[in-house]
Amino acid sequence: MIKYREIASYIRDKIISGDWYYGMRIPTQRQLANQFEVNRVTIIKSIEILEAEGFVFTKMGSGTYVNDYLDEDFISNKWSEMMDWSLSLRSQYTVQLINKLEADNSYIHISKGELGIDLIPHLELKNAMTNVSKYIGELSFGYNNGYGYIKLRELIANRLSSEGINVTSDNVLITSGALHAIQLLVTGFLSRNTLIFSNTPSYIDSTHVFDYSNMKKVKIPYNNFTEFYSIVNHYPGIKEKAIYVDPTFNNPTGSSLSIKEKESIMTCSKLHNIPIIEDDIYRDIWIDSKPECPIKALDTNGNVIHISSFSKSIAPAIRIGWVIASEKIIEQLADIRMQIDYGSSILSQMVVYELLKNGDYDNHTNRLRKILKDKRDYMLNILDKEFSTLAQWNVPEGGFFIWLTLEKDINIKRLFSELINKEKILLNPGFIYGSEDNTVRLSYAFESKENINYSLKKIKQYVMKS
Amino acid sequence: MIKYREIASYIRDKIISGDWYYGMRIPTQRQLANQFEVNRVTIIKSIEILEAEGFVFTKMGSGTYVNDYLDEDFISNKWSEMMDWSLSLRSQYTVQLINKLEADNSYIHISKGELGIDLIPHLELKNAMTNVSKYIGELSFGYNNGYGYIKLRELIANRLSSEGINVTSDNVLITSGALHAIQLLVTGFLSRNTLIFSNTPSYIDSTHVFDYSNMKKVKIPYNNFTEFYSIVNHYPGIKEKAIYVDPTFNNPTGSSLSIKEKESIMTCSKLHNIPIIEDDIYRDIWIDSKPECPIKALDTNGNVIHISSFSKSIAPAIRIGWVIASEKIIEQLADIRMQIDYGSSILSQMVVYELLKNGDYDNHTNRLRKILKDKRDYMLNILDKEFSTLAQWNVPEGGFFIWLTLEKDINIKRLFSELINKEKILLNPGFIYGSEDNTVRLSYAFESKENINYSLKKIKQYVMKS
Repeated sequence: MIKYREIASYIRDKIISGDWYYGMRIPTQRQLANQFEVNRVTIIKSIEILEAEGFVFTKMGSGTYVNDYLDEDFISNKWSEMMDWSLSLRSQYTVQLINKLEADNSYIHISKGELGIDLIPHLELKNAMTNVSKYIGELSFGYNNGYGYIKLRELIANRLSSEGINVTSDNVLITSGALHAIQLLVTGFLSRNTLIFSNTPSYIDSTHVFDYSNMKKVKIPYNNFTEFYSIVNHYPGIKEKAIYVDPTFNNPTGSSLSIKEKESIMTCSKLHNIPIIEDDIYRDIWIDSKPECPIKALDTNGNVIHISSFSKSIAPAIRIGWVIASEKIIEQLADIRMQIDYGSSILSQMVVYELLKNGDYDNHTNRLRKILKDKRDYMLNILDKEFSTLAQWNVPEGGFFIWLTLEKDINIKRLFSELINKEKILLNPGFIYGSEDNTVRLSYAFESKENINYSLKKIKQYVMKS
Repeated sequence: MIKYREIASYIRDKIISGDWYYGMRIPTQRQLANQFEVNRVTIIKSIEILEAEGFVFTKMGSGTYVNDYLDEDFISNKWSEMMDWSLSLRSQYTVQLINKLEADNSYIHISKGELGIDLIPHLELKNAMTNVSKYIGELSFGYNNGYGYIKLRELIANRLSSEGINVTSDNVLITSGALHAIQLLVTGFLSRNTLIFSNTPSYIDSTHVFDYSNMKKVKIPYNNFTEFYSIVNHYPGIKEKAIYVDPTFNNPTGSSLSIKEKESIMTCSKLHNIPIIEDDIYRDIWIDSKPECPIKALDTNGNVIHISSFSKSIAPAIRIGWVIASEKIIEQLADIRMQIDYGSSILSQMVVYELLKNGDYDNHTNRLRKILKDKRDYMLNILDKEFSTLAQWNVPEGGFFIWLTLEKDINIKRLFSELINKEKILLNPGFIYGSEDNTVRLSYAFESKENINYSLKKIKQYVMKS
């Protein structure tokens, strides 16, 4: 096709698709010339065609605009209007920005909540895929019943007995990650009147998963779970209540609940008959010593739903997590999945099954723990040297994060924005996790030591300046 | 472990997990003896242990029951109660039963909406997996940005130009199937006040996807889309409206809309400014001739959202579908996915990408069409011979189904239930798809010719009896 016709066709498609809409100024001739690597004469020719067709009009000295090219009863794209009526909430602006920049490899991701590329078990995944492909011919590949791949469910149930959770495959449902598990629980069990007691700071506060309708959230400070009783006691009249807690290597603070705190939550749950969602996604990522038992292991009446995932220990992109609950709850969740998405990808489930079965998962996590210990200590060492007068932090015993509380006069929003714009460093501010202090989340899991060193020193420069 | 202790431990875990609850009668001694392949003396020993522990009690002549084994403030599992408060709806009982039995290979699945195992492209899937595993080491395997695998999105955008849909990868979002795409649209764009115009009968009526809150559904008869205008005109005062339509080889009737009917829907959509969800999942499963263009190809302002999936043409268990819409809509959907499940499995997306890229998908669907034509004609031939006085049916030009309307005096519910209980044949009744006639859905896609022949003759016997 002749180049100017091709460009005219590109612009026409943008208008027809609704991406460029009535009244919108299209990119300048210069911008279009750069985009298509042509001179401006070619762009002018394209625009003349579209003007003749009535798709655009040009205001002298102002630019070219999308015309009201349809007949009179044309009204612009209705979907945009409906977006505003919907109950679903957009992510916080900062979270949207982080989600967008996290996909950009030109940034240093010093807060990222996932394993670095060098820590992904690529070889093990490759072997697992090869094994799966050997018996792929025997698989029906049909719609499953919403519960997930039975062999994976059996294996997960068996493995959990070493954590003190005694269940069978009937108590296991496979999800597309832990957040997805929470979403299913919200859909199946919570109502718009539910009051959620959720620990804070929390990864959950960077999402809207519990902001459904006028559902209310009461935050319980992670470092003061002894207040638990009295906080819960403030809401005696409300029937529908649930507790959300991530007891092991909390995201973002890296802290864990002690066994006493877990027991106290169980007692409170029993006394007030409040069910618990236990998000235990970082359990396998311990560094110094194996964590104490999950809350689910203390459960005596099925009030605890235990969720976890392989996103932190294998890779997020395989999208495999799980829910442990009593059979009736699992049955309800499976029914919901048959209405929402018919379960998770069988390929991912089988690949994870192979990794677990042949011991590769355990070998990989053993190796992972050593590397993460080394990287954590490396980061702590730099912090000790560079930040001792500027900030305070904890020493996490597992997980991916160090939680830094900076001195009060430092403007976190400006720090976040300057690091992005001037240094291409993505540092997640604590306020997206509900923190009201001057906090940031650092991750030793994703970047190389070199980048950890480089970015911490850059961060220090900007902290010193403010 | 000694056998009776093992059995006691099994029962204890059932009670602790909440699966067996206070007041429930546990299985009889005979049932337990059968289950564990032991004699009743062993079972009696196990129960004595549990009685001593206070977990169960035995009523003479009645059986053994779960005891109120905890202290007084024990109240049974709270989750069960919360299930009832939740807004989510259980599937219709018949749909639940079908979902359950569809996973049971001992049944003949004469209505099943998926390809038979022999029609799944196992070899091609295997090759695709081998190819993917070659470059698996280069992949970050991180959280993606909710849009999906960029290469797959590009390929889908390119392929759609041959259907008259001119879009770029920015207009494509990968989902976990078509139903999941609808679910995302409901979450992101519809509200509890939305009025949905949906064609009937419809697969959608066997789900609750549009039964959110007090959302209302107006059914438009598939065989009378000319009434479209007048039906839509009955609701002039309602601002939030949307149309759901599956124009190609409708599930369950196998019918398609003509190009005139599609144009008339577009006109109506423009006149009343009602956006359209076009579910085009069976488009690639044509038998006699390539279907006319989708409604999306007639769209001039981005009001049509086009969805489809590879579940019918490759395999359901890979869970890959897609949405085509304007960039702003795609952006909103991607944000929702970052709050719900962080996108679809990368492994499945890459495997599908490989299938499409190397031509295996097109070769497979070409072969598939010939086989489905043969099986459809085989089924029609039997119907002609055996059912000409008992029922009426259409000749589908694609898709998986023949829609049978049986004579009025035949009790469909009894037929459904007798075929399950006496013949292990699963025949989906039309009422689950919103049909008010005496209808059933037959599928030529799943079973072998032998089983098609066998089950149709069995069905005839039961039809004749009633």
